[in-house]
Amino acid sequence: MSPATISPRSSTRRLRSLRAVRRFSDRSLPEEVLLDILETGRWTGSAKNTQPWRVVVVQDRAVLEQLSRLGQYAGHIAGAQAALVLVMDGPQNAFDCGRLAENLMTAAWAHGVGSCIGSLFPDDNMTAAKMLLGIPEQHWVRHAISLGYPADDDARRASSTPSTRSVLPSIGRKPLDEFVRWEKLDRHSP
Amino acid sequence: MSPATISPRSSTRRLRSLRAVRRFSDRSLPEEVLLDILETGRWTGSAKNTQPWRVVVVQDRAVLEQLSRLGQYAGHIAGAQAALVLVMDGPQNAFDCGRLAENLMTAAWAHGVGSCIGSLFPDDNMTAAKMLLGIPEQHWVRHAISLGYPADDDARRASSTPSTRSVLPSIGRKPLDEFVRWEKLDRHSP
Repeated sequence: MSPATISPRSSTRRLRSLRAVRRFSDRSLPEEVLLDILETGRWTGSAKNTQPWRVVVVQDRAVLEQLSRLGQYAGHIAGAQAALVLVMDGPQNAFDCGRLAENLMTAAWAHGVGSCIGSLFPDDNMTAAKMLLGIPEQHWVRHAISLGYPADDDARRASSTPSTRSVLPSIGRKPLDEFVRWEKLDRHSP
Repeated sequence: MSPATISPRSSTRRLRSLRAVRRFSDRSLPEEVLLDILETGRWTGSAKNTQPWRVVVVQDRAVLEQLSRLGQYAGHIAGAQAALVLVMDGPQNAFDCGRLAENLMTAAWAHGVGSCIGSLFPDDNMTAAKMLLGIPEQHWVRHAISLGYPADDDARRASSTPSTRSVLPSIGRKPLDEFVRWEKLDRHSP
């Protein structure tokens, strides 16, 4: 497919609108939407195309609740319609894990489905998650992604989840001139 | 912006069409395209919104050539119109680095701009890259992203770069039933 069939600006505007959603509605995820998100994640690039990953899809409410207790900021998983647990070959795959997570979240958002990353942390919690999901010890299972339609129009705002808001050093993003440097790290605007 | 203004399927089809592009045309990147890619990257999410990154944009041809020699598979940087060097606070930010990389590459592809990740590896090469770009020693600078319009219609195919093809264990992706498990790691189709 030619990348020119959608306007570039409308695509990047959409990409920029992705935010963590931590409060979900009761509306269930249609199976075809979930499969389209997974199919998109499947095509994520990885180092030398090793695809050092598997995704365990959790929809059982009791298991979602158990997962939500396996990380200080994983509470949002309890109310999600599904969690995508990212099972990596090992901790050396953290970069590829980030690529996979971003692609899955972007694909979800294309369907209007919100998402939030939960960290299964510290290691005791990761071990508990592996036992819960039948994952052998050698894998690295640090991240699970909550999925669900946003509870309301405010669910994308960090300020709408006070417990979250209180631990963030900031909301929004650093200005472009701080984020980008030109040719050298100390060189601002070109 | 409502996520419903672009058809979900056309968005995810586009996401799935992202491939590494290693051969670039001589066509330069319009400044507004480069800035739109960077602006999208700036909005990438990160753990607790720490934004543990900066991006150094390299367009100087001599520096691109020097960077291209700082990794076994970084050769594509020599022919790129720009390289985005991802400067992370430390190696503990590898996951967030992957999120940033994926977002930048997706934003580039929205404009029809191809990209490829180059690893500045092993550590000696990372150190050399830091010296080249004035980056203090404590940062983690493992990845640089080549940007440019694809050289031709085949540039997205791994098979069109024989030196690359020879080191990949496979092309394409594992089937969905291998990538996804349901509820437990050993449970295939639901």
